[in-house]
Amino acid sequence: MKINRYQDISEIDREAKKDYIDRHSAFVHCEANATAGEKFKVKVQVGDEYKHPDDADHYISYVQLWNGEKMLAQATFIEGAMGNAPANLEVDFYIVPSKNMKLIAHAYCTKHGLWQSNEVAVEVK
Amino acid sequence: MKINRYQDISEIDREAKKDYIDRHSAFVHCEANATAGEKFKVKVQVGDEYKHPDDADHYISYVQLWNGEKMLAQATFIEGAMGNAPANLEVDFYIVPSKNMKLIAHAYCTKHGLWQSNEVAVEVK
Amino acid sequence: MKINRYQDISEIDREAKKDYIDRHSAFVHCEANATAGEKFKVKVQVGDEYKHPDDADHYISYVQLWNGEKMLAQATFIEGAMGNAPANLEVDFYIVPSKNMKLIAHAYCTKHGLWQSNEVAVEVK
Amino acid sequence: MKINRYQDISEIDREAKKDYIDRHSAFVHCEANATAGEKFKVKVQVGDEYKHPDDADHYISYVQLWNGEKMLAQATFIEGAMGNAPANLEVDFYIVPSKNMKLIAHAYCTKHGLWQSNEVAVEVK
Repeated sequence: MKINRYQDISEIDREAKKDYIDRHSAFVHCEANATAGEKFKVKVQVGDEYKHPDDADHYISYVQLWNGEKMLAQATFIEGAMGNAPANLEVDFYIVPSKNMKLIAHAYCTKHGLWQSNEVAVEVK
Repeated sequence: MKINRYQDISEIDREAKKDYIDRHSAFVHCEANATAGEKFKVKVQVGDEYKHPDDADHYISYVQLWNGEKMLAQATFIEGAMGNAPANLEVDFYIVPSKNMKLIAHAYCTKHGLWQSNEVAVEVK
Repeated sequence: MKINRYQDISEIDREAKKDYIDRHSAFVHCEANATAGEKFKVKVQVGDEYKHPDDADHYISYVQLWNGEKMLAQATFIEGAMGNAPANLEVDFYIVPSKNMKLIAHAYCTKHGLWQSNEVAVEVK
Repeated sequence: MKINRYQDISEIDREAKKDYIDRHSAFVHCEANATAGEKFKVKVQVGDEYKHPDDADHYISYVQLWNGEKMLAQATFIEGAMGNAPANLEVDFYIVPSKNMKLIAHAYCTKHGLWQSNEVAVEVK
């Protein structure tokens, strides 16, 4: 099964492809450092410069937050949660880390499959 | 099937019961007004003054956000996401409303079942 | 929040209402007796005499299997899993019981909310 | 992120590794042929010759059924659904296909991550 990977769209030539890649890509947004035993906010967002549709037959139905091979949390959305208009879906998870993490997000588009973010290293002290 | 309902713990006599009710109750935190077609942040939090355990056999495994009879989103967590220590689990959903909402949150504890928040009315213009 | 309950449609007068109630209702199908420590099959089915649509904006998106206040399993489906034609969605869970159970199923329709089955008692020896 | 792949354990030398690989692997069991527009049963099973634990801190928490890049259904289980004893978790999904499928199952172990089955081709007429 193919898992699509994030690609830096600044290196992509065609506008249509930039759009397609960017609006499906999952992004992990968080601080680079965390304190062990304290709540730590991690935003998972789908798309950066381009927005993804929220149509009945084409929407982002779930995102997952992974730490290496461990799945920490999954958020599932219905069609229409983004108002049936293009948007950058986002969700903020709050986790409590104990040691260094390598965070990865997955986003699933009901038409274009599974997309995996770049890995984000978090140093935990 | 019993769905436990939020109760105002200021009216509860016994400390043990205040603790039990508070740390299992789901709360919806958001602004009272929203703009149609714009992203609107809704925090679902479990517990207010008291924290819930995050043990392998006793933790909050999911929360759901409902608008009336419509389920907008569900977030599922693994045991340990809160660092295996007591915490107020929280997650921020971002939804795009089109008309007035009546938001309700559900929280599921693997030992003590399903808990439903009070309803929060949001005026959408 | 309203949770719709199963009603015996033989007691309902109007055909339109029979249809509406039946095709949304969740049913638990299983043996009345189980052996402790052995796998036990439980079918959760949505609708009995009438079929539910599987349209992009109107489908059964999840069912849950509960034992009393404990949620055992949840199955989530995409729109189209039933071929975009009316059907009785079903899923077979295999659980291993240790003592008597009171099974209940929930079904969630993306248009008509949450529906709860009758309770099915299983004697476990 | 690493996704573990099914390996034929008859080719593995060490017993400990056979056990580890087999009991985590997801398997798709179904007929090789299906009729378009008719319900088709697909069993997803975890492990074949070896059983996986069902402990609070080590269990199979979800399986997914994919058709190529499309996720058809996900079933989520609580710890204890298999009676807290080693078992081959299984779930039967019923889907309605319209054209040839390439089915793949995923299984997620809370300790050992994500495992992907071999692909099973189904001819649909």
